[in-house]
Amino acid sequence: MPHVMIIGGSDAGISAAIRAREVDGAAEVSVVLADDFPNYSICGLPFFLSGEVPDWHRLAHRTRADIEREGVRLLTGHTAQAVDPARKVVTVKAKGEPLELTYDRLILATGASPVRPRIGGLDLPGVYPLRFMADSFAVQRHLDERAPRAAVIVGGGYIGLGMADALTQRGLAVTVVEHGPSVMKTVDVSLGDAVRAELERHGVETVGGVAVKSVTEEGGRLVVRAEGFERGADLVLVAVGARPVTDLALSAGVETGPRGAIHVNRHMETNMAGIYAAGDCAETWHRLLGEYTYLPLGSTAHKQGRVAGENAVGGQREFAGSLGTQVVKVFDLAVARTGLNDAEARGAGFDPLTVETTAWHHKAYYPGAHELRLRVTGDRASGRLLGAQMVGHKDAEVAKRIDIFAAALSCGLAVGDLEDLDLSYAPPFGSPWDAVQVSGQAWTKAAFQGRVAHEDREETQ
Amino acid sequence: MPHVMIIGGSDAGISAAIRAREVDGAAEVSVVLADDFPNYSICGLPFFLSGEVPDWHRLAHRTRADIEREGVRLLTGHTAQAVDPARKVVTVKAKGEPLELTYDRLILATGASPVRPRIGGLDLPGVYPLRFMADSFAVQRHLDERAPRAAVIVGGGYIGLGMADALTQRGLAVTVVEHGPSVMKTVDVSLGDAVRAELERHGVETVGGVAVKSVTEEGGRLVVRAEGFERGADLVLVAVGARPVTDLALSAGVETGPRGAIHVNRHMETNMAGIYAAGDCAETWHRLLGEYTYLPLGSTAHKQGRVAGENAVGGQREFAGSLGTQVVKVFDLAVARTGLNDAEARGAGFDPLTVETTAWHHKAYYPGAHELRLRVTGDRASGRLLGAQMVGHKDAEVAKRIDIFAAALSCGLAVGDLEDLDLSYAPPFGSPWDAVQVSGQAWTKAAFQGRVAHEDREETQ
Repeated sequence: MPHVMIIGGSDAGISAAIRAREVDGAAEVSVVLADDFPNYSICGLPFFLSGEVPDWHRLAHRTRADIEREGVRLLTGHTAQAVDPARKVVTVKAKGEPLELTYDRLILATGASPVRPRIGGLDLPGVYPLRFMADSFAVQRHLDERAPRAAVIVGGGYIGLGMADALTQRGLAVTVVEHGPSVMKTVDVSLGDAVRAELERHGVETVGGVAVKSVTEEGGRLVVRAEGFERGADLVLVAVGARPVTDLALSAGVETGPRGAIHVNRHMETNMAGIYAAGDCAETWHRLLGEYTYLPLGSTAHKQGRVAGENAVGGQREFAGSLGTQVVKVFDLAVARTGLNDAEARGAGFDPLTVETTAWHHKAYYPGAHELRLRVTGDRASGRLLGAQMVGHKDAEVAKRIDIFAAALSCGLAVGDLEDLDLSYAPPFGSPWDAVQVSGQAWTKAAFQGRVAHEDREETQ
Repeated sequence: MPHVMIIGGSDAGISAAIRAREVDGAAEVSVVLADDFPNYSICGLPFFLSGEVPDWHRLAHRTRADIEREGVRLLTGHTAQAVDPARKVVTVKAKGEPLELTYDRLILATGASPVRPRIGGLDLPGVYPLRFMADSFAVQRHLDERAPRAAVIVGGGYIGLGMADALTQRGLAVTVVEHGPSVMKTVDVSLGDAVRAELERHGVETVGGVAVKSVTEEGGRLVVRAEGFERGADLVLVAVGARPVTDLALSAGVETGPRGAIHVNRHMETNMAGIYAAGDCAETWHRLLGEYTYLPLGSTAHKQGRVAGENAVGGQREFAGSLGTQVVKVFDLAVARTGLNDAEARGAGFDPLTVETTAWHHKAYYPGAHELRLRVTGDRASGRLLGAQMVGHKDAEVAKRIDIFAAALSCGLAVGDLEDLDLSYAPPFGSPWDAVQVSGQAWTKAAFQGRVAHEDREETQ
């Protein structure tokens, strides 16, 4: 009866635990977690703070009872302090007391923590990161007790923009400050600009190309400053990315990769026998790049955890890999991407072409048609599909359309194969050529014209 | 300068024409069509009749001007009467006058006509089929001038149910009479029953297992009768399927297949050199069955037309094939399918298992979550995905989720591969494991349990 111990009770850890029990009903499975919130959906925090999900308990993917019903032992309030791989012992602290726990297999699912940028004053009251349940309780308390009227959000990524949406719903005047030229730098600037327009339509001020230097308290208010920029605020959120939490792994002698994430193989094994890692603390195999990268995403954490859990009880499952597929809602827009953008594809040795198209999400004559903006990236030489980005109304099936691209990418399809997919059609849901296919046809046309132009140039030389 | 002549101006014909001109800008391309409505979306007729699309002109995929701008000659009001393949001449009748038109390549896109069941009284005033623009004008006139209060719809398929929705919106009391046990026999009975419940929730009476015998006029009303069934009505619609229109093809010596559709190869060529066929008049290559079948769908007509048009001007494109992917809106539900159901899979020599699952369309905690019902069919022996069916709220991204299955089917994925797809996740749009993946996991579990049970049986024998 192997004892599988998992450090970390978020998506990867709980997925690993459940899967281990599912595959081997005789396995003893324990999850050590520092707080009291196993399996909470951190992607859901903005919706709790906006008021759309009034009861934070509902943010749990599974309740404590759900997890325990699967035969998983939950050690909440236990902070793992050290791993001794020779003795197979984890030292934890529970209620101030140190405790030694033995294991046969160990899964590190220690997650990520918010990047702390070099900005003065981050410890001032009223300045918050947003990653853990405790952060969201602190922000909620601030909102309830201090009734802030203006917020500055440092960082225009997924969490920053989700919170811009949430705080606007709570009645705050919001400014988003972003280092890059537009917001949402995971998509190309033209789509980022569409997101920025949506933010501004809802009264959110966006300021690009600004590196925040300091937050100070002046006359009972916070002041955020950068070169040529100054805004007063009653609340400041800092959301500029995440980095893997690996102290425990390093203490045990587990190797980490370039971005500091735990190095794993496709079985989610670390360099040390019997120690696995999964989720935001670990590297991710990228299906298109064919290499390990750092791409912390909730959906990936679930998948990696499941693989690690299965293998920890003797399985031989491989993690298929990530395409970096993601979607976010910003007010009435959905913004999504999968695969590589132009620069990433070029960096990986492809000869990419990216083509932007607009297409209706369903037949224009049927009431409620929205225009989608799609950007398709493919390899000129082989015609292979490399990636797609999309922005459109939140009701325009953007997420599942990006997933059609994701499925196509997983299968290594060419851009030209998209039009051959037998997709569903009815006027309220699509067109005889779906927007996905229209964007593929536009890419093929542009690639062909590019080749012709290139040949013409060659001929005249 | 080849002259491509196309008979039929609906989806397949116009797609062929546009594509021929796109590939060969020097080609002379003419489309002969009997009525004045090129490229009209017949799938849109219910939305015109419901009042959702008040102006029927908007139902055109492209306007006459759009088509002519591509350099296509439109011969509206021209009825093709005979083809003489030896002389490469089509005889047409225009304004009562016969006319001979020559061609180099001919594309038959003559479409389908409504099946006329053996029911007495189909020619009575107030009894209509629904396939062509003229049909919808006749029904519209009947609705406007006669203000009918009750309708009987014979046939519970896509058009019948679309019209049940439309006529209910127009204030009529509607009864749907269906030969089969439930409605929407393109999906399994459990999903058909969900559709029936939705119809009844909106006041539509549904009667299954009834073969209508006659419609009669009695005391100024229509009466629809079957064994043990009788309903009065002010309007009767008959929508029991479509059959290929092939008179012209047969007159020219073109071969047809088992269901009477024009036999074509993957290049959309008929048995006669230089004569192509596409759309509802022609056979369809089925990607999973690996054989030709009759599956008249608008999306397929566009694809086949495009292939025929390209090849008619010298191309060598192959039609990739159909999966029978389809979706329809019935009141607040979307009903969709792709690939094979259990019986079809068994007929094709597979050893199918079909598993039904329910899953939320996005995180249950985010407001507006709807439950989806999914049925996944896979092959027990190989694990290969064979088909999927889905019913859910019209806003629950059913159509694009069935398209994820369609993409997976096109690539020959196993059911077990679905969980490896890197699909997008954000709480308003999905779950870390999308409903598509949850249904795949449920199938895998059931298949495994089935194998274990089977082995247990073998051991005890």
